[in-house]
Amino acid sequence: MATLPSVSYSITVRLELDGHGSAVGSLTNAVEHVGGVITALDVTSAGHERIRIDVTCAARDTDHAKAIVDALGAIEGVTVHKVSDRTFLMHLGGKIEIKSKVPLRNRDELSMAYTPGVARVSSAIAANPDDARRLTIKRNSVAVVTDGSAVLGLGNIGPEASMPVMEGKAALFKRFADIDAWPIALDTQDVDEIVRTVQVIAPGFGGINLEDISAPRCFEVEARLRELLDIPVFHDDQHGTAIVVLAALKNALRVVGKELGEVRVAMSGAGAAGTAILKLLMHAGAKDVIVCDVHGAVHPGRDNLDHNLEWIAANTNPGGYAGDLGGAVRGADVFIGVSAPNLLDGDDVAEMNDDAIIFALANPDPEIDPDIAQLHAAVVATGRSDYPNQINNVLVFPGVFRGLLDAQSRTVNSDMMVAAADALASVVTDDELGPHYIIPSVFHAGLSQRVAEAVREVAVREGQAQI
Amino acid sequence: MATLPSVSYSITVRLELDGHGSAVGSLTNAVEHVGGVITALDVTSAGHERIRIDVTCAARDTDHAKAIVDALGAIEGVTVHKVSDRTFLMHLGGKIEIKSKVPLRNRDELSMAYTPGVARVSSAIAANPDDARRLTIKRNSVAVVTDGSAVLGLGNIGPEASMPVMEGKAALFKRFADIDAWPIALDTQDVDEIVRTVQVIAPGFGGINLEDISAPRCFEVEARLRELLDIPVFHDDQHGTAIVVLAALKNALRVVGKELGEVRVAMSGAGAAGTAILKLLMHAGAKDVIVCDVHGAVHPGRDNLDHNLEWIAANTNPGGYAGDLGGAVRGADVFIGVSAPNLLDGDDVAEMNDDAIIFALANPDPEIDPDIAQLHAAVVATGRSDYPNQINNVLVFPGVFRGLLDAQSRTVNSDMMVAAADALASVVTDDELGPHYIIPSVFHAGLSQRVAEAVREVAVREGQAQI
Repeated sequence: MATLPSVSYSITVRLELDGHGSAVGSLTNAVEHVGGVITALDVTSAGHERIRIDVTCAARDTDHAKAIVDALGAIEGVTVHKVSDRTFLMHLGGKIEIKSKVPLRNRDELSMAYTPGVARVSSAIAANPDDARRLTIKRNSVAVVTDGSAVLGLGNIGPEASMPVMEGKAALFKRFADIDAWPIALDTQDVDEIVRTVQVIAPGFGGINLEDISAPRCFEVEARLRELLDIPVFHDDQHGTAIVVLAALKNALRVVGKELGEVRVAMSGAGAAGTAILKLLMHAGAKDVIVCDVHGAVHPGRDNLDHNLEWIAANTNPGGYAGDLGGAVRGADVFIGVSAPNLLDGDDVAEMNDDAIIFALANPDPEIDPDIAQLHAAVVATGRSDYPNQINNVLVFPGVFRGLLDAQSRTVNSDMMVAAADALASVVTDDELGPHYIIPSVFHAGLSQRVAEAVREVAVREGQAQI
Repeated sequence: MATLPSVSYSITVRLELDGHGSAVGSLTNAVEHVGGVITALDVTSAGHERIRIDVTCAARDTDHAKAIVDALGAIEGVTVHKVSDRTFLMHLGGKIEIKSKVPLRNRDELSMAYTPGVARVSSAIAANPDDARRLTIKRNSVAVVTDGSAVLGLGNIGPEASMPVMEGKAALFKRFADIDAWPIALDTQDVDEIVRTVQVIAPGFGGINLEDISAPRCFEVEARLRELLDIPVFHDDQHGTAIVVLAALKNALRVVGKELGEVRVAMSGAGAAGTAILKLLMHAGAKDVIVCDVHGAVHPGRDNLDHNLEWIAANTNPGGYAGDLGGAVRGADVFIGVSAPNLLDGDDVAEMNDDAIIFALANPDPEIDPDIAQLHAAVVATGRSDYPNQINNVLVFPGVFRGLLDAQSRTVNSDMMVAAADALASVVTDDELGPHYIIPSVFHAGLSQRVAEAVREVAVREGQAQI
């Protein structure tokens, strides 16, 4: 598993150098010599003696970026003026903005969009509160709510630092499902306060997407909010992940010709994602699952099981296996990891059943090197974008919320999630299905709409829809 | 004071009629006969026998709109198919939306705007929290916060019903100052909960605009939040109104050649707007003010004065006048009303000093008919758009927050407000200044920028700026 230069470590180096014939070549050589990749080269001004060039390069990481800059500066005659990090530049002032949907060019338009015309619309909603779902942004809005306690692989970095991720989430909601999502980063980590705050701000939103809230608090937060609110509450780290995994697993099972109800599944990770994946797989028919965490397999004989682990112990691992992960995967048909890097090696997965399926989803480094996994399994998936079968929540949360909003659903439940997973899986046709294509690309046209329609249908059928 | 047909009561009537020569004329006659105004007429389909026309009309109110529809339907050969209210149509699905500022067309762009590139930006902010003001929407975002307890002239209609007004506010922030404002309608009216909720959601915002929260709770909410937060907190119903009034009054005094420190001011209304206007006028130099509410003049001898009225009693009305409003305006140079309709008549204002200034700002019907006020005063202003000198907060809140955000100010105070008022007043040049033009139009080019620069300068000078 190599780390290649990535556009996410993209720098633009503004430099000046002598304007002789091989100027450009010397730059390219220097960058490639240290393993960087030039993605763009722009001459910004040229004179008889000196020319100015903006060189954009992809690096492996920040140290490598520095090495590239040093290599350029070391060329005779080159002066480095400025180094810009494209990712940081993109973030200046934030990544999302508001737009008015109504024109405000003159007094007439103001008088309809604002006073006095707006008063009639407010009066209508006061008389019939359900009309808020039709006449306000509640029709199309989702709050992306975090307390910054479990952000990506960075952990507990707090609300301000979580904002770039939340803004990105909002941008993705718009890009893939035309949903208007707004980030709400909370300056509290107290469960009661989180629940009460979201309840208090709920009126203007059609749905709540909980994000990057650490386990086990996230379970209680979501459960309590689902009780209190009449709009759907969905913790994407739990259920978005679970839905993609279920969809990918369904397709992987099609590839190897096995049934969900008949396979043995070994899981690593009993946190937010692991728990949700487990529950959704079981709702969809899985019967034989063993879950391991840092202390090994979860079984009823273990001490100090919190509320969540107690449920897992009571509902999985019927054989009472009490060993470690390496032993749990022995003879298993499926391994799903949402835990930490380098927990399994080739010898471990060689002990899996024939036609094994391996989903090693720890980010950025999976539980097992995918190249090694591929030597022993029929189908391999990771969370990485540089391998096939990327398990990516972006495939799910836009379409799920699109369906919930279009139904004006009061809630989201396992039936809707399974329907979403089925719709996602069905995007891959029989002709396309294969060990290296069990899940579509996030850019697959019409994908979110397919997921949305499936979710909407269930919401309507189950009487959860307000439309 | 007449009520004219207004575009804010604009309907579109879809109808079908015989396609003979005078078809259109019969429609126009019928509408005009009942006092409506046709603003648009579109033939949507034409055949030999029948044609379909969309007739758009401005009405005075909803009853008048119905009368217009009835009049059209009464024409022989006309079939009314559908009546649409343009204001309501404009509100379907809400009036604002999100837009991504960054492209998300391919995996490279995703990797910078979202994972993995975004992690580096989050890490940077975790290491240096002040960077949130540079690298996130905190640079440009304002929460428009209400509990729906005092919405326009509708009173306590609650959070859902307040949303159209809050969305309109957000649209205006964008239109006039390129600010990204998001509505937060709270499902609580408890002061402690309002304060705590806003504190908890503050990390992603650069400023808080409190809106339509009833007095006297709004004073405590704003004061406590200003203590707790390091971003500005501004209740527009209080200070937006106060700033426009101060600006207009400064110019009106220029028209009549009087000084703020030398005039007697009689005020009607001791709520949110009245209190804020009073305090800002006094901060700007006014010395002789009498404030009346529904019980007459506020003076120390009155019983049952709440905290706010106690302050007013202690700091105004040095002569201890204890009568009603009619007596308070006698001999006054200036009357400012932010209270209720029809409190003064021509005889009352005839008793004001020469070159009187009358700001009758109750909406939609002022404290005195402006046509009558004009008979007795040198300068008259109202909140209405169908009279000159419209006192409109839209002249202020965009520019004020623009300045606060550009300074990354930690707070907003009276010095900044007076500077905003001065800037607004100075938009009207000496050549332009006159009794019918003391305040510019909200569409005046560059107005918000002028106000913003004045506020920004004060914030920087007083050390409140983070930049």
